[in-house]
Amino acid sequence: MDRKINLAVIGTGRMGSVHVRNVARLVPEANLVAICDIRLEAAQPLAEELGIPRVVKDYHELLADKSIEAVLIATSTDTHDFIVRDAAQAGKHIFCEKPLALDLKKINDALAAVKSAGVKLQVGFNRRFDKSFRKVHEVVASGEIGRPCIFRITNRDPDFPAIEFMRVSGGMFLDMTIHDFDMVRFLSGSEAEEIYTMGAILVDPEIGRAGDVDTCVVTMRLANGALATIDNSRKAVYGYDQRVEVFGSAGMVAVLNRTPDTHVHFAANGVHSATPLYFFLERYADAYVAEMQEFVRCVQAGATPPVTGRDGLVPVIMGLAATRSLKEGRPVRLDEIR
Amino acid sequence: MDRKINLAVIGTGRMGSVHVRNVARLVPEANLVAICDIRLEAAQPLAEELGIPRVVKDYHELLADKSIEAVLIATSTDTHDFIVRDAAQAGKHIFCEKPLALDLKKINDALAAVKSAGVKLQVGFNRRFDKSFRKVHEVVASGEIGRPCIFRITNRDPDFPAIEFMRVSGGMFLDMTIHDFDMVRFLSGSEAEEIYTMGAILVDPEIGRAGDVDTCVVTMRLANGALATIDNSRKAVYGYDQRVEVFGSAGMVAVLNRTPDTHVHFAANGVHSATPLYFFLERYADAYVAEMQEFVRCVQAGATPPVTGRDGLVPVIMGLAATRSLKEGRPVRLDEIR
Amino acid sequence: MDRKINLAVIGTGRMGSVHVRNVARLVPEANLVAICDIRLEAAQPLAEELGIPRVVKDYHELLADKSIEAVLIATSTDTHDFIVRDAAQAGKHIFCEKPLALDLKKINDALAAVKSAGVKLQVGFNRRFDKSFRKVHEVVASGEIGRPCIFRITNRDPDFPAIEFMRVSGGMFLDMTIHDFDMVRFLSGSEAEEIYTMGAILVDPEIGRAGDVDTCVVTMRLANGALATIDNSRKAVYGYDQRVEVFGSAGMVAVLNRTPDTHVHFAANGVHSATPLYFFLERYADAYVAEMQEFVRCVQAGATPPVTGRDGLVPVIMGLAATRSLKEGRPVRLDEIR
Amino acid sequence: MDRKINLAVIGTGRMGSVHVRNVARLVPEANLVAICDIRLEAAQPLAEELGIPRVVKDYHELLADKSIEAVLIATSTDTHDFIVRDAAQAGKHIFCEKPLALDLKKINDALAAVKSAGVKLQVGFNRRFDKSFRKVHEVVASGEIGRPCIFRITNRDPDFPAIEFMRVSGGMFLDMTIHDFDMVRFLSGSEAEEIYTMGAILVDPEIGRAGDVDTCVVTMRLANGALATIDNSRKAVYGYDQRVEVFGSAGMVAVLNRTPDTHVHFAANGVHSATPLYFFLERYADAYVAEMQEFVRCVQAGATPPVTGRDGLVPVIMGLAATRSLKEGRPVRLDEIR
Repeated sequence: MDRKINLAVIGTGRMGSVHVRNVARLVPEANLVAICDIRLEAAQPLAEELGIPRVVKDYHELLADKSIEAVLIATSTDTHDFIVRDAAQAGKHIFCEKPLALDLKKINDALAAVKSAGVKLQVGFNRRFDKSFRKVHEVVASGEIGRPCIFRITNRDPDFPAIEFMRVSGGMFLDMTIHDFDMVRFLSGSEAEEIYTMGAILVDPEIGRAGDVDTCVVTMRLANGALATIDNSRKAVYGYDQRVEVFGSAGMVAVLNRTPDTHVHFAANGVHSATPLYFFLERYADAYVAEMQEFVRCVQAGATPPVTGRDGLVPVIMGLAATRSLKEGRPVRLDEIR
Repeated sequence: MDRKINLAVIGTGRMGSVHVRNVARLVPEANLVAICDIRLEAAQPLAEELGIPRVVKDYHELLADKSIEAVLIATSTDTHDFIVRDAAQAGKHIFCEKPLALDLKKINDALAAVKSAGVKLQVGFNRRFDKSFRKVHEVVASGEIGRPCIFRITNRDPDFPAIEFMRVSGGMFLDMTIHDFDMVRFLSGSEAEEIYTMGAILVDPEIGRAGDVDTCVVTMRLANGALATIDNSRKAVYGYDQRVEVFGSAGMVAVLNRTPDTHVHFAANGVHSATPLYFFLERYADAYVAEMQEFVRCVQAGATPPVTGRDGLVPVIMGLAATRSLKEGRPVRLDEIR
Repeated sequence: MDRKINLAVIGTGRMGSVHVRNVARLVPEANLVAICDIRLEAAQPLAEELGIPRVVKDYHELLADKSIEAVLIATSTDTHDFIVRDAAQAGKHIFCEKPLALDLKKINDALAAVKSAGVKLQVGFNRRFDKSFRKVHEVVASGEIGRPCIFRITNRDPDFPAIEFMRVSGGMFLDMTIHDFDMVRFLSGSEAEEIYTMGAILVDPEIGRAGDVDTCVVTMRLANGALATIDNSRKAVYGYDQRVEVFGSAGMVAVLNRTPDTHVHFAANGVHSATPLYFFLERYADAYVAEMQEFVRCVQAGATPPVTGRDGLVPVIMGLAATRSLKEGRPVRLDEIR
Repeated sequence: MDRKINLAVIGTGRMGSVHVRNVARLVPEANLVAICDIRLEAAQPLAEELGIPRVVKDYHELLADKSIEAVLIATSTDTHDFIVRDAAQAGKHIFCEKPLALDLKKINDALAAVKSAGVKLQVGFNRRFDKSFRKVHEVVASGEIGRPCIFRITNRDPDFPAIEFMRVSGGMFLDMTIHDFDMVRFLSGSEAEEIYTMGAILVDPEIGRAGDVDTCVVTMRLANGALATIDNSRKAVYGYDQRVEVFGSAGMVAVLNRTPDTHVHFAANGVHSATPLYFFLERYADAYVAEMQEFVRCVQAGATPPVTGRDGLVPVIMGLAATRSLKEGRPVRLDEIR
């Protein structure tokens, strides 16, 4: 085994604490040496539970610690860009939750800092590490379905996030659809050229007052000629609906939802089975572990992580194009977004 | 039982001969008294096989026969409108294959003739009679899935039609997607207001030379606020892919493909099962029978058939809007089409 | 096309009228020249509906008619053997519903008459003609699953037959399980050597008073070394449960139930879909047609029908062995039954 | 949170090391204070990997340590009974892998020691903790399927165990089927009264020379009147086949296999998907964690563990009855086994 990596986690909120537990328990190649949160009272019990030796309130303390080789950034979105910049300048390898920022200039500045420091950066597009989506990626890449013609993604959340989150999230396209934009890029190995969006407020009028939509259909044309269609909803009462399908000239490969159990109940009034796994923490539990294992392996091996800075940048551009398409009621070319 | 209806079939090509066999064998409420085809040599053996007493070459002969109450028109598309007009003027009830015509003026003239004659007209949107789609219609109409938000349709043919057919078919939107336009109307009980289309030539360059596309994604906004997305391909190597899904505020209802058998083979290299039923003749065999049974019942009962002249007209308008959207690269409102 | 066969149907009750309609509509190679029922009032309307020229009360009239080449016997079980015998002596080819009789001597006498007359005999084990079971047969025969090790059959009716029927049916093993005995023979190409039966009265005590069971599990050892297990119930509230699975040294092949439609409803409380097709008339509609088409083809071609007299005899022997096993609480070898 | 339990693991082979990792990582209510293995070289690296402070070769050392409250026994089967006895006498709570022993006297002696010491004992029937089987248990217990009539279990391993293991395993019924015997008891809440077994050597003649079978079908009659049927194979090339179905007077509930991913590949030659999870370590990964969490909770709360000593005893009696039935070719009553 390669030597262990000393790693610290910055941000121990919902996503951060998932990462902390995963690294502590299931990434033996990493020493989780410290965690950081401006709300010390959140970080402290987590550190005790897992035997993490150090808890700090200010991430600069960790960046100043020469023994720490890598940081995982899971703070709120509006802080990602400058923590990435600071961490890069401190020479730390970086795993950063998505999105890097909602603003292209901030992202570009952060990426420039990463580049000039020569550190590794991996962006948290966790779905690429899901076994089913990886399998689709493999099948497409193998050529088994021929030339990809249509990418079709369904991504529906089981329930609305808190309205405060929605106000700062950048809107549906930068918060939810961004995962699908990443997935289209991951599966196609190509880039979107043009995006057209229809959106609607059908479930909760509150969303509209916050300036967002709760339902959308996005259509894209890719550089390789293929088409893509994505549908999203903020509220699927039957649970987290996460499906992908790639149709090609020689076949189709699709991913179905996963369920918490596989029971089937045959009754006089129908056949009943379980709804999909409730939400991302359940559905992508394995993927969150796998992405961290991969990040640590890349740091150990000096390899380029599989989700790069550019992979963090482009989906934001796509989200901005989708947003503009919605506002202007017309297809928007990606090169219009700067 | 009500008295039997005397019915004649005009056009005994591929679809016509399906109807002829269905009526002769499985619609006991109808007397199939005559069939007609300009190629007498095609109609004759069919009449012999089924014991149909009369075969003619010119449909005017049938229209002149007072004992014939209803005609089924299954000739080539470019003849539908004037045969409908002639049949209406002769006082015959009419079942006509889709589309009524590719030109709005022709359709409107034919419908005016039907209206002024006071005869029944049913248009052959057979998929409305498929048990699975009817079930989806019922579930949506019952309110069980709440407010419909997203209609999602996949319609992919297993193989290209003959290139000669494609040249006169009016293009993908008027030939294939027209069924999906009808399905959206049937399931939503609403009308499209705006249509945006992306199309591509990905499988057969020959299609492009004929001025058509072989792959498309269509997005629509409906009057009730819901969104719809349709994807089509001319060639799905795994068979006829016919799926529908309606996502609503209180649930989702979907239709999966049907297979010729339900065997499942578990081997060391995977689990294998049958591909979907090959094409429309297999997939919609029951629906073709059911639509004729319904037509005959409506004629017997003096009731309005379930797929009206207007149901024949609107999908053509939608097809023309989709075609214009493809050409002009922008969303097209239905009220632009006249 | 070969010349048409003149065929008559004897018995127009539930099964008989299914055969009559199938032959009249969907077996163009046969002329249905006459039908016969001791209750003329049952046969008459059927003949009118389908335009069958002749209706008789006494089957001997049909046997005396030289123009009739084949008869289909769908009378009550206790009359099968002597009608088969009479028909054979009259030189008619015979399709006879299962079982041939509940008594080995009667069956042997009937088969002897068939043999000495040199006529064709096909027994109505319709499930062999179901597309899914045929596919399993093919996969097993091809060697794709290696050496068959376990045959597992589930056969559960949706509801009890009339109690009068049950009294004369010969009991569960000769009425229901007989189909599974046939299926094991069909799929394995081997013969049972030993049968052990557990039965119970769990649903309706009335059954017990009639001397029968309503639930059973049958285990068998086949001559080729494989094992088989069958479970039956008289009442599955979720519909007709018809599954088969063959497990072999190199894989497994199974058949799932068919449903009337393929809708799936995703609700907050679960995912709901359709129960299996209700009962044998729906589930095996195609198989009833296919077996008659095959019978007529064999008569036309002078070929041996695919379900022979021996195929009619052996499952009765198996049913008698299963019955004895139940009574005596021990495994019974087939060679104990004479 | 209740205070943590000091726990030691005895035996760090295949199953033992799974338990060690699970307790260390995923059972925060337990302090894993020591592990023990006669092959110190196996235990040492595991202790290092997980930071376990103490490793011993002789389990008596652990039993003598007053600070240790509970032990997990995962040594080879032939040592279970006396380690249980010793641990009980030392006042430790005990989690013991199945089976307790292959010999009734040994089991009874061990259980007597447990009883007289008043310690908790949980036996490692892990499948009871699988979410899908728990769901079936719940549905059956709720009465939703009415009176249970038929329990049907399929349990097939993907490959043979090592031949040395098979020689000491007690044979198929005490090694494999024992899980199914437990499952029937768990799901039915009833006891078997009579067992009949058919077995065969169909895959590997070597098995026969070792005095065992590789394929079997077991039929049982339960005290509540229901029937049960189990089929087992040592080698299913398509993976670990783990299905259960309970058929009742008011419905049926079943469990399907789980797969590593949910991709579906639609190709011209069929529809392909993943085989079941390979073997017990993958299929029951969650159940192994859940059973330990439950054991620790019971020790903390002073509650009776959900899988008791009697639950460890009865399946062995059933296995002995099944073995005798195979040898004597007749149904064997459980009360014949003493």
